Amino acid sequence: MTSVSARPGELARVAAPAEGISADELKLAARNHGMPLEALRYDITPPGLHYLLVHYDIPFVDPASWRLTINGAVERPVELDLARLRERPQVTHTVTLECAGNGRARFLPRPISQPWLDEAVGTAQWTGTPLAPLLREAGIAPDAVDVVFTGQDHGTERGVEQDYARSLSVADATADDVLLAYEMNGMPLPPQHGAPVRLIAPGWYGMAHVKWLREITVQAEPFTGFQNATAYRLKQDADDPGEPVTRVRPKALLAPPGFPDFQTRRRIVDAGEVALFGRAWTGTGTVARVEVSTDGGASWREAELGEQAGPRAWRSWRLTWHAGMPGDYELCVRATDDRGEVQPAEQPWNRQGMANNMAQRVDVTVR
Amino acid sequence: MTSVSARPGELARVAAPAEGISADELKLAARNHGMPLEALRYDITPPGLHYLLVHYDIPFVDPASWRLTINGAVERPVELDLARLRERPQVTHTVTLECAGNGRARFLPRPISQPWLDEAVGTAQWTGTPLAPLLREAGIAPDAVDVVFTGQDHGTERGVEQDYARSLSVADATADDVLLAYEMNGMPLPPQHGAPVRLIAPGWYGMAHVKWLREITVQAEPFTGFQNATAYRLKQDADDPGEPVTRVRPKALLAPPGFPDFQTRRRIVDAGEVALFGRAWTGTGTVARVEVSTDGGASWREAELGEQAGPRAWRSWRLTWHAGMPGDYELCVRATDDRGEVQPAEQPWNRQGMANNMAQRVDVTVR
Repeated sequence: MTSVSARPGELARVAAPAEGISADELKLAARNHGMPLEALRYDITPPGLHYLLVHYDIPFVDPASWRLTINGAVERPVELDLARLRERPQVTHTVTLECAGNGRARFLPRPISQPWLDEAVGTAQWTGTPLAPLLREAGIAPDAVDVVFTGQDHGTERGVEQDYARSLSVADATADDVLLAYEMNGMPLPPQHGAPVRLIAPGWYGMAHVKWLREITVQAEPFTGFQNATAYRLKQDADDPGEPVTRVRPKALLAPPGFPDFQTRRRIVDAGEVALFGRAWTGTGTVARVEVSTDGGASWREAELGEQAGPRAWRSWRLTWHAGMPGDYELCVRATDDRGEVQPAEQPWNRQGMANNMAQRVDVTVR
Repeated sequence: MTSVSARPGELARVAAPAEGISADELKLAARNHGMPLEALRYDITPPGLHYLLVHYDIPFVDPASWRLTINGAVERPVELDLARLRERPQVTHTVTLECAGNGRARFLPRPISQPWLDEAVGTAQWTGTPLAPLLREAGIAPDAVDVVFTGQDHGTERGVEQDYARSLSVADATADDVLLAYEMNGMPLPPQHGAPVRLIAPGWYGMAHVKWLREITVQAEPFTGFQNATAYRLKQDADDPGEPVTRVRPKALLAPPGFPDFQTRRRIVDAGEVALFGRAWTGTGTVARVEVSTDGGASWREAELGEQAGPRAWRSWRLTWHAGMPGDYELCVRATDDRGEVQPAEQPWNRQGMANNMAQRVDVTVR
């Protein structure tokens, strides 16, 4: 087992300055995938185009024998099968999900893990039953602090063998819009998105939306599992315990205009009026402004905002670019939320490559 | 345009011996995706898990205004809309598709393009109408040699601006099982798989199954377009015109046993009986034998073959491995077709990284 062990909880490696993507990172990139950015045209991301991040393997879970247990610091433990879960009150929320590691491979130096560029995002209609009433029926103990959600995907990570598990505070777990979801876009959950049941916690980065859910444990002590205490932290160096990764930071993305070069993905557009459009979202409020630069961030113009795809989902934006002189341009886009938080032009670097909302940059050649 | 131009038709770069995956390759890997190999358990790959390779952008095609034209060396040019296409005789074929570039990133040295490892495969049920009767109704000219299929995805590739287009010979295009497909697994084609209509040419590598089809041109001269004459060729060096990439070479894949380490994807299994299983396929006949090695290819055992998912699809195989002594193992698997062609242990290297059917190797730790 020496070859798979690491010191339990040790930090992932950071790449050397000129180091290309490693074979290990490529193994992750070949499995997991982003949303091709031309799919920003859709309010609801078509099936198969939504981003996907699986820590271990996609487990095979038989819906007929699936059970969910709610236990721990509750008065009346609960066990539910899928039929009973589906009999409960049903709601549908349209939710934009983004991976906490989105943008990791744009960090310099690059933390070694799933090497996302900009595409780890998607919006879906999630149908399920609200979690809060279920927890209230189970009777949350007065001294409870955390609710732990455990999935069925099993693996080792930095030397720690585990079923993937993440906690929310009791307050966050009992928010009105937290769902036990069993449908995505009106169909039973596909295997890779957590079939038969996953958590949906609108506003949180993807790591909180535990897939292949099997157990919910209410705890009177803070949860100290790997994914909360070690993995999803904003750390500056190896000795920093770090701050937890929580809600999605504001971000805007541009659907790259024109057409691409196959190998470089550089865009080519004809001189003249170019319709720019994209989406913007945040997990902490609402998007108040989207700005576009066509000169690498030196100057900015405000885009026209469209409707949100739902109160928990991205909103569209558009701007006409008068692309005059042929040549190479760097387009940038940035969002500002209703609290005045604006996407940074400089990277919010951290040791594990989390929550990078640095403004997107798109290379365009006008001809 | 200097930054997007290359000499028209020039070769892609080959990586230096120790060169990591480049930023350009990562841009492709973040968009396109393989089938996570645990999905080998399914006869029919669930939606969203099928491999995806898009040369340029996924175009948006309105099914209401979509038209297909059949022209060139025919007596009666045809124009069809989707309703008329759907009124024609309908058949469904279960087909295993594999990208011609699958395995490219396992080549040493590595040709620079989409950096696939082993996963660029999937099996789906494709429903549509046979092409041959349509071509016969149009009246193929007696001197016709090639049929060119042109899609709506537009881009530049090695300096050549193009709509993606590939040809088949008249004989190959009029094979009984070639379809104009408008459904995948019983649903309208999703955008990324060619909506509203794509070609399905069973047995051929993925490049032949043109997506977002808009035009079929019968030619009295051989087609010399980029994707046939330049891209999909087996070349040994820059001056070699190369042989065309055509039908899928025999290949077997193993669903990696046990559970993975997150970062390395190395597998961990408990000592004892380990059920190994996977799928094998070929585009040139049938799979006659699958063999498994648990000692890096030094010795081989024959696996038990299961049913094919259909006459044009993969077949399952299984073998019990008595994993005894704890330690590190390299598992290999190879298929042999009914003509006696066996997967090589050494790489069938070529300058553009095509048709690599070198035997898969999976690192496993027994504990």
